Amino acid sequence: MAHIDLKQPILDKNDRLAKENRALFAEKKVFVVDLLASPGSGKTSTILATINALRDEFNIAVIEGDIASSVDSEKIKEHGIPAVQINTGGACHLESDMIRRAVEVLDLDNLDLIILENVGNLVCPTDFDLGENMKAMILSVPEGDDKPLKYPGVFQAASAIILNKVDTLPVFDFNEELFRDHIANLNPQAPLFPISATKGDGVDAWASWLAGKIRALKAS
Amino acid sequence: MAHIDLKQPILDKNDRLAKENRALFAEKKVFVVDLLASPGSGKTSTILATINALRDEFNIAVIEGDIASSVDSEKIKEHGIPAVQINTGGACHLESDMIRRAVEVLDLDNLDLIILENVGNLVCPTDFDLGENMKAMILSVPEGDDKPLKYPGVFQAASAIILNKVDTLPVFDFNEELFRDHIANLNPQAPLFPISATKGDGVDAWASWLAGKIRALKAS
Repeated sequence: MAHIDLKQPILDKNDRLAKENRALFAEKKVFVVDLLASPGSGKTSTILATINALRDEFNIAVIEGDIASSVDSEKIKEHGIPAVQINTGGACHLESDMIRRAVEVLDLDNLDLIILENVGNLVCPTDFDLGENMKAMILSVPEGDDKPLKYPGVFQAASAIILNKVDTLPVFDFNEELFRDHIANLNPQAPLFPISATKGDGVDAWASWLAGKIRALKAS
Repeated sequence: MAHIDLKQPILDKNDRLAKENRALFAEKKVFVVDLLASPGSGKTSTILATINALRDEFNIAVIEGDIASSVDSEKIKEHGIPAVQINTGGACHLESDMIRRAVEVLDLDNLDLIILENVGNLVCPTDFDLGENMKAMILSVPEGDDKPLKYPGVFQAASAIILNKVDTLPVFDFNEELFRDHIANLNPQAPLFPISATKGDGVDAWASWLAGKIRALKAS
């Protein structure tokens, strides 16, 4: 398909700029997480829960990627956290040049962590390096335990996998053991964090793990 | 962005083949629905519920689009319905040439309805004409009432909007009135069908509406 052939030059350009972003983040010792998930999996809620768990120790900013609207960045700003909204127009993922422009309005010298909330999409953002330290992903319980079989790429690209909305496990037919088996097959290195972002369950384990990564970067 | 510039030739080629698909479907008087939704919104469950409601009157087939796996087509076949699995590799949407090849293995002379289950994605499939009679979309309650603001394109492209998993409304903070307002702003023509595909609520209203479209085509 033509689609595949045309993709490579876009990726090459993206990757060049991603390298520049990565060098800038390394120089400023800012840890950057690219967060991937479907629409409605609870990305913004998870980011807010993470901010609440980590804001006493770290200075945090968020870059929000959406096709349209500024719903998410407004939610973040209400909590007193710097947030930059990127509207991608029609594009189904963030690209490294968008990140570079968004970063220009942030005070990198006084930041420890930037969370990039990518466009809600389990496919397209996977291939795009933004210069982040790691990609993390969220799957929510209502989406179903078979999603690793159907969207393997994103589960393989993630350095951490968050299972959100575990408070709704009693309502949905979601086999957590089967889900863990799928992940163990695709990406045995990635830790799995079952959480309820809105209720707070499990957020500490995820936030502590992330804090360890940020501290390690600061100490390097 | 380069992404936008490269997209047009792909769309042009896609649209040419979509026209051929549309002519073939019209000649055979087969009604074709392109079903769009996020991962885990209940596309396959909705298709199964629709099949159960309509199979006494119509001959139905399903074309399943997934990045990987044949989980969905196997589920459909278990119900004695012809199903063709398309694995897109990395592609985030179905294209009209994939549909043309899939259709070759179906007996179009003896079909009334083909449902195309697109890749789980609220963005990319929107722009791709597959030769269908209409696009329909599903949003599920756990995804949240703000999704029309964030993914307006798909809500505008749909001729019918299904709100699935309404049995979980008590568990989620989903404002159905606000959701209806968003849709009325974006796409006042499209009917909204609140359903629970697994419990059966509301499926009859959606299936009856669809049956009317199929009968109209047959009678034309």
